[in-house]
Amino acid sequence: MTSNPPVDKVEIEQGYTVDAFHRGDFMLVQPRKGHRAGMDAMMLAAAVPSFFSGRLADLGAGAGAAGLAAASRCARAEVVLVERSAEMADCARRTIAHPANSRLSGRARVLVADVTLTGKERSAAGMEDTSFDYVVMNPPFNAASDRGSPDELRRSAHVMHEDIFEKWLRTAAAITRPRGGLALIARPQSLREILDALQGRFGEAQIVPILPRIDEPAIRIVIRARRASRGGLTLMPPLAIHDPRGERFSARADDINNGRTSLFGD
Amino acid sequence: MTSNPPVDKVEIEQGYTVDAFHRGDFMLVQPRKGHRAGMDAMMLAAAVPSFFSGRLADLGAGAGAAGLAAASRCARAEVVLVERSAEMADCARRTIAHPANSRLSGRARVLVADVTLTGKERSAAGMEDTSFDYVVMNPPFNAASDRGSPDELRRSAHVMHEDIFEKWLRTAAAITRPRGGLALIARPQSLREILDALQGRFGEAQIVPILPRIDEPAIRIVIRARRASRGGLTLMPPLAIHDPRGERFSARADDINNGRTSLFGD
Repeated sequence: MTSNPPVDKVEIEQGYTVDAFHRGDFMLVQPRKGHRAGMDAMMLAAAVPSFFSGRLADLGAGAGAAGLAAASRCARAEVVLVERSAEMADCARRTIAHPANSRLSGRARVLVADVTLTGKERSAAGMEDTSFDYVVMNPPFNAASDRGSPDELRRSAHVMHEDIFEKWLRTAAAITRPRGGLALIARPQSLREILDALQGRFGEAQIVPILPRIDEPAIRIVIRARRASRGGLTLMPPLAIHDPRGERFSARADDINNGRTSLFGD
Repeated sequence: MTSNPPVDKVEIEQGYTVDAFHRGDFMLVQPRKGHRAGMDAMMLAAAVPSFFSGRLADLGAGAGAAGLAAASRCARAEVVLVERSAEMADCARRTIAHPANSRLSGRARVLVADVTLTGKERSAAGMEDTSFDYVVMNPPFNAASDRGSPDELRRSAHVMHEDIFEKWLRTAAAITRPRGGLALIARPQSLREILDALQGRFGEAQIVPILPRIDEPAIRIVIRARRASRGGLTLMPPLAIHDPRGERFSARADDINNGRTSLFGD
């Protein structure tokens, strides 16, 4: 995303930054280099209904931005941040332990595990079947497939990419209780792979296109769905991040960035 | 669609009506009862670029509304209206022969054929491989799957529905030349089936969500794609049919209804 993330840097440690989200409601410790949490994580968290109560897994949580944003807005959510990378899991632990996050620290914990594990290995790693009421995920994009890479590389990246949604949604389906919720954020290019991977696992899918401006193509999609439902797909009205002209956030995007509303109005 | 179709009845025969489209640019003869052409056909036709020149097939053309609307806006389009029903094909022939359509009659003809034919039967019926530059289609909806029908019936309707996109897009792929165009209009619920049926046949897919109003879920999607392309999917900005409040057509929807612009701005 080209937009500035909705953060204020308030403190800088060696190699890390501590950024305020939701206008200071919680802090995020994250590496200064590499992927940095921003609006994608806030839009994903905003897909969770404000009335949500129960156990929520943030798969591939990184430093924990989406999971903690959900915990910050949903006062009765208990969040498990599932992260494979030791470095990012360490950030997530520092995030939870940060004094400014004391309001959330009792409702958040880190699980170091690979989202793509299956069967007994998945359970043994702490992701037990039907043990969550909600799952959110922001699967990593494969940057190679965005660039003008050679056909060979692009094909291989494409296969990897399909793999990701199939594997991540297989795990999401296993660990979510019947009628439990799912939310994910992804690029529009992944729509077919996502719909295929949802099929037979989640229903009542709702897609919100995320547009830079109301007259521009979508740069992200947020998809919400319900476990073990046969309900059909709804293509929701879009979210425009900016006002029609200029770089100012739209009022709705600003509310979503700052945890003041849910993306689906519930 | 609940909106009134953008037509003015100007003449009524026994059992038929003759309706003006594009503010009188062409007339459509259609049965007074049953499916009646309206805004769906105009939005489908509007997906064809204004500069289009060549042979265009309207699959399941009915009385010919979409194909003739494309011919009306694209002065160098030659249109083949493919229709299985003898009654609707007869309407299409009457439409082409209508004196008010003399501007179009040299560029339009009717082909009575079943879109779902395959192989030699398809060629023998007049739908020859790679013989078209553009294909448009508005496959019939299965109304049963919209209602609160029993699960058994819904499942069977669902299978029929999947079948339609697979079969119709198989024919579209066969008869479209490489790099030729495809446009279809459908319900959002069919998105997965459509994307699956496009896969390996058409690329560079562009989806326009059609919303009653900008803050309401989509009731239709228009999808455009290119034959034998590997390009990825774009989720385009939506078209809102009505202004935010009230029942007035938005300026853009009114332009599209009346053949004054293309849906994709080209």
